[in-house]
Amino acid sequence: MGEGVDVVDDARRVIANPDIDVVVELIGGYGIARELVLAAIEQGKHVVTANKALLAVHGNEIFRAASQRGVMVAFEAAVAGGVPIIKALREGLTANRIEWIAGIINGTTNFILSEMRERKLAFDVVLAEAQRLGYAEADPTFDIEGIDAAHKITILSAIAFGVPVQFDKCHVEGIRQLQAEDIRYAEQLGYRIKLLGIARRRERSDASPEGFELRVHPTLIPASRLIASVEGAMNAVLVKGDAVGHTMYYGKGAGAEPTASAVVADLVDVARMFTSDPGNRVPHLAFQAESLSDLPVLPIDAVQTAYYLRLRVADRPGVLADVTRILADGEISIDAALQREPGEGENQTDIILLTHRTIERRIVAAIERIEALETVLSRVVRIRLEELQ
Amino acid sequence: MGEGVDVVDDARRVIANPDIDVVVELIGGYGIARELVLAAIEQGKHVVTANKALLAVHGNEIFRAASQRGVMVAFEAAVAGGVPIIKALREGLTANRIEWIAGIINGTTNFILSEMRERKLAFDVVLAEAQRLGYAEADPTFDIEGIDAAHKITILSAIAFGVPVQFDKCHVEGIRQLQAEDIRYAEQLGYRIKLLGIARRRERSDASPEGFELRVHPTLIPASRLIASVEGAMNAVLVKGDAVGHTMYYGKGAGAEPTASAVVADLVDVARMFTSDPGNRVPHLAFQAESLSDLPVLPIDAVQTAYYLRLRVADRPGVLADVTRILADGEISIDAALQREPGEGENQTDIILLTHRTIERRIVAAIERIEALETVLSRVVRIRLEELQ
Repeated sequence: MGEGVDVVDDARRVIANPDIDVVVELIGGYGIARELVLAAIEQGKHVVTANKALLAVHGNEIFRAASQRGVMVAFEAAVAGGVPIIKALREGLTANRIEWIAGIINGTTNFILSEMRERKLAFDVVLAEAQRLGYAEADPTFDIEGIDAAHKITILSAIAFGVPVQFDKCHVEGIRQLQAEDIRYAEQLGYRIKLLGIARRRERSDASPEGFELRVHPTLIPASRLIASVEGAMNAVLVKGDAVGHTMYYGKGAGAEPTASAVVADLVDVARMFTSDPGNRVPHLAFQAESLSDLPVLPIDAVQTAYYLRLRVADRPGVLADVTRILADGEISIDAALQREPGEGENQTDIILLTHRTIERRIVAAIERIEALETVLSRVVRIRLEELQ
Repeated sequence: MGEGVDVVDDARRVIANPDIDVVVELIGGYGIARELVLAAIEQGKHVVTANKALLAVHGNEIFRAASQRGVMVAFEAAVAGGVPIIKALREGLTANRIEWIAGIINGTTNFILSEMRERKLAFDVVLAEAQRLGYAEADPTFDIEGIDAAHKITILSAIAFGVPVQFDKCHVEGIRQLQAEDIRYAEQLGYRIKLLGIARRRERSDASPEGFELRVHPTLIPASRLIASVEGAMNAVLVKGDAVGHTMYYGKGAGAEPTASAVVADLVDVARMFTSDPGNRVPHLAFQAESLSDLPVLPIDAVQTAYYLRLRVADRPGVLADVTRILADGEISIDAALQREPGEGENQTDIILLTHRTIERRIVAAIERIEALETVLSRVVRIRLEELQ
């Protein structure tokens, strides 16, 4: 410790110290961290935190308390490590109506997916290796089930659309079920599979009310998109604004130094705005309190996206005709199809279909009918697909 | 025009109007724009500008005047259009010592290089098409000779290293001389050629004094780097900071709406800091006046980089031995070599060499000796190569 720095073993003494203006919370989790952050705000202290879980779940309470007390809560390190994505969204793109955000915002899962693709390995094999290398924790649930990414996209969605954080409404699917063969088929069709956090504004339509989609799941994206080339443990957030078009922000999403980079930048921001009128500061959720929106999170069955479907079928004439008839009945049109040549003496094969954009409830209904076909031999594998245009 | 908006046909009336607090300059060029910006500052008005040429050439004078008068000059739109790269560097990465920046910061040349590579066309053919499509101007000199990119990297270097803008010391080479075959050979070796603006800090070494490199030129970069996949008229700036590592910022670098996105963000920033103490504002060149550095721009012959060399040689034994001997004498080591199979009855061929990193003056001396060889039949083509790691 540097000279003149007091080290105490009880965080409450930091909060009780009237000489301290800013508290940095790097504990993580929802428990003691929440208590300390609220206590610091109560004492009129500004807070800098890297705690995405806390903000995604208790952000509304924390930001409300901070606004009432006239203090800042800065949280650049909460999403994409040292990449200044919060600053870009809240300040740099302030002139834009944000249409959507799609982010690779969990390094562990991106590392696993990159390895599965490049080295043609199964999920379990790569996970074990990631754990050995320190890219995945001993209990990797939080990362591989998509929860960490869901915390981050929840925070980004709130800033993008000026809505409260609503983690409980985020649809979350992880990568544990992902099969190596789907990564391979996707590649043959010109796509890569990434775990994306997606927040997308939807206008009212015949099929769906106004609202926004908030979801984390494995996603096929065209291999030609820049974000498809983001490999290993790196993070990238792609943002579509109405004026600026597509912008992307890329870098290390975790680690002590990238996190410290963001925390120090927040401290400088807080110091800069320290003496300013609270009304002149950047609002926590980018929008002034009176401009916050009650735009609802759409339920997952109202989500609009395209789909990759893999069917294990009997190698018999008429199967594809039956399947495509069911899709046509459901008003789902097909963009591409691929049929694996059955091996010598094999009486089964795989059909892979890419659909155009449709509504989730239609694909769910169609899959139910497809799975009822006698010639369809197992559960249909379904992965969402985004063109990101 | 909106109701209540006065439109005047003399910009001086805007500057003379005491009710106006902020002047937006979107004229471009160094002439009348400089005069008006300085006059506005003199009147105590804040300035928002998209004018990279003005700031790269007259920035020191303008920022000095603004500091003396206690007003802000905001210029997010000057580099990479609506991508908030100025904000990222000055604020988001403020905790970092910036080691280097490498940017695709001119859309016209990136469009031309992308088309040359993808469609295997010559420069002149693609330029004509770019002009037809409106991606290149009737007089494209400014873009294709690298001058526009040099303006932008000059501004970025000043912010990154806390030095004055020094456009006159920027080494500039454009893409007009680039041959389609070099793009092809580069691809065979796993590289792409991009027009990069590069600013890189160099510590003192035996070979070179302390300083920074400031240069714009066609550059081979590994095809596996994310920035190598930035195609068409898009921009991307890759930044290496000591804490955060590599971060990249990507988007449209030009156009009315992306520029407006950045201008409005600047206006919001200016409004937010309007009543604050000038000492609390973000300094124009990122560093406080007393922390500005006199780190010199290194002359081009002191630059350290790797090289792609293409030699047209007589198809005779011993040629490669002669060439590699000269390089070894110059302490230049070879990373990869490629020799084209001469066609039926052809008595000439091409040798392509990639060197490891060396000092520019060594490669210049070696090339002089190589060109003096009787078996080397034309000028050596030399393109700089950066690993960007």
